[in-house]
Amino acid sequence: MSSTVGQVIRCKAAVAWEAAKPLSIEEVEVAPPQANEVRLRILFTSLCHTDVYFWEAKGQTPLFPRIYGHEAGGIVESVGPGVTDLQPGDHVLPVFTGECGDCRHCKTEESNMCDLLRINTDRGVMLTDGKSRFSINGKPIYHFLGGSTFSEYTVCHVGTVAKINPAAPLDKVCILSCGISTGLGAALNVAKPKKGHTVAVFGLGAVGLAAAEGARLSGASRIIGVDLNPNRFKEAKKFGVTDLINPKDHDKPVQQVIIEMTDGGVDRSIECTGNVQAMISAFECVHDGWGVAVLVGVPSKDDEFKTHPMNLLNERTLKGTFFGNYKPRTDLPGVVEKYMNKELEVEKFITHSIPFSEINKAFDYMLKGEGLRCIIRMEG
Amino acid sequence: MSSTVGQVIRCKAAVAWEAAKPLSIEEVEVAPPQANEVRLRILFTSLCHTDVYFWEAKGQTPLFPRIYGHEAGGIVESVGPGVTDLQPGDHVLPVFTGECGDCRHCKTEESNMCDLLRINTDRGVMLTDGKSRFSINGKPIYHFLGGSTFSEYTVCHVGTVAKINPAAPLDKVCILSCGISTGLGAALNVAKPKKGHTVAVFGLGAVGLAAAEGARLSGASRIIGVDLNPNRFKEAKKFGVTDLINPKDHDKPVQQVIIEMTDGGVDRSIECTGNVQAMISAFECVHDGWGVAVLVGVPSKDDEFKTHPMNLLNERTLKGTFFGNYKPRTDLPGVVEKYMNKELEVEKFITHSIPFSEINKAFDYMLKGEGLRCIIRMEG
Repeated sequence: MSSTVGQVIRCKAAVAWEAAKPLSIEEVEVAPPQANEVRLRILFTSLCHTDVYFWEAKGQTPLFPRIYGHEAGGIVESVGPGVTDLQPGDHVLPVFTGECGDCRHCKTEESNMCDLLRINTDRGVMLTDGKSRFSINGKPIYHFLGGSTFSEYTVCHVGTVAKINPAAPLDKVCILSCGISTGLGAALNVAKPKKGHTVAVFGLGAVGLAAAEGARLSGASRIIGVDLNPNRFKEAKKFGVTDLINPKDHDKPVQQVIIEMTDGGVDRSIECTGNVQAMISAFECVHDGWGVAVLVGVPSKDDEFKTHPMNLLNERTLKGTFFGNYKPRTDLPGVVEKYMNKELEVEKFITHSIPFSEINKAFDYMLKGEGLRCIIRMEG
Repeated sequence: MSSTVGQVIRCKAAVAWEAAKPLSIEEVEVAPPQANEVRLRILFTSLCHTDVYFWEAKGQTPLFPRIYGHEAGGIVESVGPGVTDLQPGDHVLPVFTGECGDCRHCKTEESNMCDLLRINTDRGVMLTDGKSRFSINGKPIYHFLGGSTFSEYTVCHVGTVAKINPAAPLDKVCILSCGISTGLGAALNVAKPKKGHTVAVFGLGAVGLAAAEGARLSGASRIIGVDLNPNRFKEAKKFGVTDLINPKDHDKPVQQVIIEMTDGGVDRSIECTGNVQAMISAFECVHDGWGVAVLVGVPSKDDEFKTHPMNLLNERTLKGTFFGNYKPRTDLPGVVEKYMNKELEVEKFITHSIPFSEINKAFDYMLKGEGLRCIIRMEG
């Protein structure tokens, strides 16, 4: 690979030319990494809801042409000036948010919301010089979430790239770079259920089921899954979900259903839909005295969380989390080790696998709510 | 004192015959304690906002005639059948909420909201038989918060009475039976500021200043006090409050003022007013990534806590507390020891002292917002 160092690489990428139109596989030019950047060869990537949300461009300023993708696994091809933490050949997971190591957030153990490299969905260029590293015939193609992993090669800020155990199979652990860690961390790092606890999970997509997986790892004795889509229920049982509730089946608020079936409420709840009514239900269904509700799903711009303050005064806790409170570079290697130690089951999240040339199928699966994660094999 | 055991005691009590009218000192009959009850001789009591709130009877079902008072110190005169934890002569603090020791709340370390003896503002009788132990000429006078300490003798459920160090001066530590412990515990047990943290306290009455005292004990380096009444500010400085904000002095929301003066928000905030707008401000002024807001003040029936859920997603925590998360019988003796060890400063909360005969003055002080705690000397 040394022949490409410092050179522009020509490779295939799936370009989104406009909102909600199928991606088109194109030959793009990928410039060499600049200061504090690394260029990665992506081996496996997968599709996350966030890609679809911004590709549909319904709720935000559209930025096209753009290369989506941010959940992936790859190998460092070359590094730019000033990069000492990574070297060519390192196995890595690029992450949609970063860890500069120097800001107040990075310096406290309590936060992973790095000031410098925090998620930025509007920025389509590199921090260093405000330019894109992707182009076609000299015309820039924009980055997405610092990742743009729907490309055989991509350039990332070193602070958003986690170095992992090279023995870990990238076709499996690539899904730990975003959604699965988000749900898992929400349970393990934030909700922290105790052995024997009852946990409610709202939304049984990949993130919610990863939260259920975290509850299972914590020793929860009962996991109540809530989803409007009954197709989710079959899969959910593989994740240790013991009870399933479809709010449509009840003529009272789902929090009341849960309170009645648990003698006063669950010990922990984790909200993974982003729907504000589900957030309110997730909070109001936890037991007074000790219940903790954790919000994971991203709300809409104009949403309002409303509850009677007495629900809080009665010793309930409400908190939110971002990327499961994992610091990307510090903590992700440990999540990969959980898989290597056979503690965390990753395979059950992978329901599809397709070659890069068929990437649009992954969008179809997600739009139909079919399966959980679709692995996209860059090498075919 | 043994001569009174098993006998009705005739003594003085301050009776509220109707809402918001001055109390009247009357001779009442206090029946002997029944199963799981103790009869206490009250030596010192003090007035708390909750007494005034229910005496004014603006927002709840009025129950008269009633003997108010619940923040007090006394000595056990006699015990009813089945009482083994207390004996005549024990120095005690009666508490407005209890600890039965047997329910799910009492059995978990995380909660103090006892199922059996949880605060009940409507009940004016004893749990055992649904009757009052107070009467005048055979006509019952109702209890209040299981205390009714505006009487020389009162009867309480044993589960609401904390036995304390007999060397502790009851004229000082009586105020630890309610408000001061509520604010102190909100800081020490719930907000848990770390050394060097910045803490905002909303409401600078006795509870808020007790929260500030807790922040000071925790090593907070900056304590920002917020109150609409500038008269509070002089007193607040004695409690280590370093910055004072009157929201009336600013033309932007107080949370924005605080965020600007603290480079992004405080580490912890504690809300002690019960005003729902102050609750929202207290939540929204904590720093993203690690900020924790604790609600202490009791809201009105129709209040609604509203915020954009993104404020939670950005890793802020919102929780409420009841009696500072102290378990009355298990934890109050330790709070008294904090005073005995000269760690906790109790004297600075005591701004007035009056004989029982002048009890209505204590109501005047509180209604005028004058001072913090007024000790009522039962024997003087």
